[in-house]
Amino acid sequence: MLVLIMSVYLKDIPLPEAKSRLELALRELNLWKVLGIETIPLDENAIGRVLGEAIWAKISSPHYHASAMDGFAVRSQDTLGAEPGFPLVLDKFVYVDTGDALPEGYDAVITIENVESLNELGEITPSIRQPSAIRIRAAVTPWNHIRPLGEDIVQTQLVLPAGQVLRPVDLGAVAAAGHQVVKVARKPSVAVLPTGSELVPLGSILKAGDILEYNSLVLAAQVNEWGGKAQRYPITPDHFDDLCARVEEAKQNNDLILINAGSSAGEEDFTAQVVEKLGTLLVHGVAVRPGHPVIIGLITRNPDQYDIKTIQSQLDEKNPRILADSRSDTVPIIGVPGYPVSAALTGEIFVEPLIAKWTGRHPLEHPIGKAYLTRKITSPGGDDDYVRVALGKVGERLLAAPLARGAGVISSLVRADGLVILPSGVQGAEAGELVEVQLYRSIRETERTIFCIGSHDMTLDLLAQFLFPRDRRLASANVGSQGGLIALKNNEAHLAGSHLLDPESGEYNIPYIRRYLSGIPIMVFGFVRREQGLMVKRGNPKRVMGLEDLTNPGISFINRQRGAGTRVLLDYHLSKFGIHVDEIHGYRLEEYTHLGVAAAVASGRADCGLGIPAAAQSLDLDFIPLFQETYQLLIPKVFVDSDLMSPLLEVINEQAFHQAVMGMPGYDVSQMGQLMAEV
Amino acid sequence: MLVLIMSVYLKDIPLPEAKSRLELALRELNLWKVLGIETIPLDENAIGRVLGEAIWAKISSPHYHASAMDGFAVRSQDTLGAEPGFPLVLDKFVYVDTGDALPEGYDAVITIENVESLNELGEITPSIRQPSAIRIRAAVTPWNHIRPLGEDIVQTQLVLPAGQVLRPVDLGAVAAAGHQVVKVARKPSVAVLPTGSELVPLGSILKAGDILEYNSLVLAAQVNEWGGKAQRYPITPDHFDDLCARVEEAKQNNDLILINAGSSAGEEDFTAQVVEKLGTLLVHGVAVRPGHPVIIGLITRNPDQYDIKTIQSQLDEKNPRILADSRSDTVPIIGVPGYPVSAALTGEIFVEPLIAKWTGRHPLEHPIGKAYLTRKITSPGGDDDYVRVALGKVGERLLAAPLARGAGVISSLVRADGLVILPSGVQGAEAGELVEVQLYRSIRETERTIFCIGSHDMTLDLLAQFLFPRDRRLASANVGSQGGLIALKNNEAHLAGSHLLDPESGEYNIPYIRRYLSGIPIMVFGFVRREQGLMVKRGNPKRVMGLEDLTNPGISFINRQRGAGTRVLLDYHLSKFGIHVDEIHGYRLEEYTHLGVAAAVASGRADCGLGIPAAAQSLDLDFIPLFQETYQLLIPKVFVDSDLMSPLLEVINEQAFHQAVMGMPGYDVSQMGQLMAEV
Repeated sequence: MLVLIMSVYLKDIPLPEAKSRLELALRELNLWKVLGIETIPLDENAIGRVLGEAIWAKISSPHYHASAMDGFAVRSQDTLGAEPGFPLVLDKFVYVDTGDALPEGYDAVITIENVESLNELGEITPSIRQPSAIRIRAAVTPWNHIRPLGEDIVQTQLVLPAGQVLRPVDLGAVAAAGHQVVKVARKPSVAVLPTGSELVPLGSILKAGDILEYNSLVLAAQVNEWGGKAQRYPITPDHFDDLCARVEEAKQNNDLILINAGSSAGEEDFTAQVVEKLGTLLVHGVAVRPGHPVIIGLITRNPDQYDIKTIQSQLDEKNPRILADSRSDTVPIIGVPGYPVSAALTGEIFVEPLIAKWTGRHPLEHPIGKAYLTRKITSPGGDDDYVRVALGKVGERLLAAPLARGAGVISSLVRADGLVILPSGVQGAEAGELVEVQLYRSIRETERTIFCIGSHDMTLDLLAQFLFPRDRRLASANVGSQGGLIALKNNEAHLAGSHLLDPESGEYNIPYIRRYLSGIPIMVFGFVRREQGLMVKRGNPKRVMGLEDLTNPGISFINRQRGAGTRVLLDYHLSKFGIHVDEIHGYRLEEYTHLGVAAAVASGRADCGLGIPAAAQSLDLDFIPLFQETYQLLIPKVFVDSDLMSPLLEVINEQAFHQAVMGMPGYDVSQMGQLMAEV
Repeated sequence: MLVLIMSVYLKDIPLPEAKSRLELALRELNLWKVLGIETIPLDENAIGRVLGEAIWAKISSPHYHASAMDGFAVRSQDTLGAEPGFPLVLDKFVYVDTGDALPEGYDAVITIENVESLNELGEITPSIRQPSAIRIRAAVTPWNHIRPLGEDIVQTQLVLPAGQVLRPVDLGAVAAAGHQVVKVARKPSVAVLPTGSELVPLGSILKAGDILEYNSLVLAAQVNEWGGKAQRYPITPDHFDDLCARVEEAKQNNDLILINAGSSAGEEDFTAQVVEKLGTLLVHGVAVRPGHPVIIGLITRNPDQYDIKTIQSQLDEKNPRILADSRSDTVPIIGVPGYPVSAALTGEIFVEPLIAKWTGRHPLEHPIGKAYLTRKITSPGGDDDYVRVALGKVGERLLAAPLARGAGVISSLVRADGLVILPSGVQGAEAGELVEVQLYRSIRETERTIFCIGSHDMTLDLLAQFLFPRDRRLASANVGSQGGLIALKNNEAHLAGSHLLDPESGEYNIPYIRRYLSGIPIMVFGFVRREQGLMVKRGNPKRVMGLEDLTNPGISFINRQRGAGTRVLLDYHLSKFGIHVDEIHGYRLEEYTHLGVAAAVASGRADCGLGIPAAAQSLDLDFIPLFQETYQLLIPKVFVDSDLMSPLLEVINEQAFHQAVMGMPGYDVSQMGQLMAEV
């Protein structure tokens, strides 16, 4: 029976094979080429369009011999012998402005600064334009200060090749070469079909199980950005007949259908069946991660129904004329997986190159950089694995910090500065390994990134927001206070937020710095003093009043990860109370941020957790204050005076930032920005 | 008198001072900030807009505990003890699809692949959804295969900072965080005013002195690309009152006026006077090259006339609401110089940063690379000098070949792969010097550039066009055959086109390779055999029949530059005829390409010149055939088998390319693509 269940499952094939199946199918259909060419006016809307034909110059530029300066056209032979001490007076000359045609019979221009204008009496005169004569003090060579015909562009030469994506200056060159219109690839029309009974449109009042439909937004935006023309359809629920009808509708006037999702093999994943019913299934499952349940197929179109007029009217802008168009009885369809990261990457991997081919431009490519991994990555080995990373340059080394791997974590794509691709066959990569990174941002931008690794505090979001206009990005990884110290020790962070209480001295951070970071001069800046306490549901239904209640039966707790300052604080106080951790239900369940703990409580996953009041307030929880603690910024001395860091030190000493922090509950900023210690 | 004339002249100030004058003036006017914020729907049109406010999460994502897989929700404690050899049968479970909410009372999910569904009799059943019981063979931990509430985004956290330029994935994250609209910076409205009596619109029938007006097209395209909203005005002739009226019109509903040109100090350059009449002149002349006659000023606007409704209606798209807007009695104006390269660079230098400031994003920046100069650059020293360069990687070295310097040569901007900026105070840079380059293209793209330096032949344009779809760019510099040999010797080219006739042996190229390139293995490929002859005006009015006529009085000649194969050929035959070069009028006037020579003849600058029939035909000249010669491609052996070069070798062996070349007159392709010699 297991076998039978497995047989309905998708079967992953390697990415290159999936791509070549699509390419081969499209080649056979004569669809592996520019789909069509249209003529559009040469105006500013032509920007970003792809030239469908090369531009050859129809005229030369300049199209006549032009004066390159304001001055006087002369005959060069008349100027022979003129020298500063032996001026010559010329009576054969014509005043010319820059750009004026060289008058017949003249072959050089002298700039007005180098001429004295004379009146009829031979006196210097202010009349520039029509002096009786001019006096010069230097000879000029033929063609002096003249832009000869064709200096820029000669008639018939190649100005731009087909496939060029038009930039502003290109428009100028095309105009200079005598064109008023350009022939460009028409934009492929791409239908984006969100499907799923669980999907609800943006703005819906949400209940558990509802999924906000925004993949179609991301996919449509990608398509438009890449030079296609996306058409978003309404959500279609998971009913086989409805899905078929929707695909039938979309196939008529589109060059490509993206159907999202239903591409997996669950009970309600009909996409593969729809494709099989309406056409041919080429691929079901690709060995990429995230994103493997990709479907590729072909949908048969009734050519009689293919409505070229509708396509034409979609081709917008000022009545373009379609010169040639690939019509086909067949429309490719891509079943895009439902997880947002999978969906966006499927766009990058499959849709972008297709639009490139269909418009005749080169596929986009990210620049490549090399960076050292801050953490080990494990990979299943059978897949091409796309790992999002944050990048920062600490000292001389470019570092890549792997971000959350989950296919549902769209924020990992938003925060990503690049992708590390572990090809199939590679099981992973070690911490410290030098890896190739496809860069989403320029290296220069990553060089302005402050890598902040350590304890989480919600004011770091505020700090990031204040730093942005100062051209600094704050990339913060929440690995706990001890993780921050390790990052500093490994030279993998510019800065660590830390609130490690030393049980013996009762002092924060400094004993730990001495212990873990000996030999690395660290400057400790005051940041916030903050309350720590228990977050509980509004009204405190379980009546939790302090740590001693955590052992009560029926109370479930959510903890922070090992190494977090909050966990150190908890353990410190538990041991003071003589409470053993095994007595606490949920002690081993870990979250990585205060907000994560708050969310666990808010959702009922746990009854309480230790954290800060700002997190409790954010999620509308009650807060039982227990302790006050010190959260500081630890910065290696070598970075304190750096150009990179100085905007941060400015911000934490600014009144506006202090005010903003105090707008959140439970914070004391009296030490913020002060140098507390040098260790 | 000279003094008086000079006094009306512009006075260049350093670029940083010009920028800071503008900034200070705008700061005083409270215009040095985001101009206004508008709310737009969160749809695919939001792409590229700049966030006017930070996005904080309104909801968590997921907003409930979601199953991460298709499978069965179970209670983890029920699974304790299950092992492959000791299966457990559970009767408390709920089938869940991926994304379904975790049912109340359950805390883990087991994927369907790891479950056997049982019917009432305890037999395995194909019913996945509603079995009577399930059998499992492994225990699961709490929260197994569950995406807890807030896994991606926790309510109240920072999703995106203000100033972020929205990308497709950002739209997804904003949607996931519960937003339906976004507040973005409104697009600054920029008036683009082309002025000049000599200007004519595209499509005009041209006469000498007419200048095609396309700067407004380039500027408008730049403005739109950078996030502004350009409004192009019709051409205004150079009449002071007309210009004033036009500026008065443009100032009412725009945030910035670009007036092009009239910014210099010629007789008809009224821009500075217009600015002084209607407002304040801040800057007249900036020490940048090209582009120095820049004007910066402020135009006073009557606040009563400031029509906020018109602005609002210009703000397009689906009725946005203006939340806040900087109104001012004053509109900045930039007088943009008239030369197209100056105009485009003035846009980059002054307009782009202003739009960045007004929309709240970071200014654009090109990546920086380092390259070795192939030629010396001289620079006046007082200016910041922007030198356009072509880039190519030859061997291990990235090379920068300076392009034509003229401010009128827009094709130099089109061909540029980057800019070398020689700051004021620097007199130039030597050949071989390592210089910093602002990159217009990625290094990866330049690595696919074939640097072809040497003799000019018109088929190289065709070759470039054939290479483009094969992802190779051909950057050809026309320095003559001997220059090509020198470039190969210096390891500065992948390839040289050459047709150097050895007077002693009558052999082409090979004796020269032996002489100049000893020690560098070169493979010589056949390319074209072509005719050389005299180009003359249609009808041959001066009755030139051969080289012996060049000494006739009244015949003027245009020559190729020293080192050009055509010049070597000419000199060879002149010496055979016993003609001394001083007998030829125009022998010392040089052009760098066949088309350049043809253009000189077509325009009447010379009566005849030696060249190829394709050039003559292009410009509608008559051609008097004199000789046949061999034009070959010389490729260092080390590049012949490279990945870079192989597409080129394919193309020159392809029938389609041969056909295309034979479509031009005077070419024989019988040796094309053949390996003629290894030297």
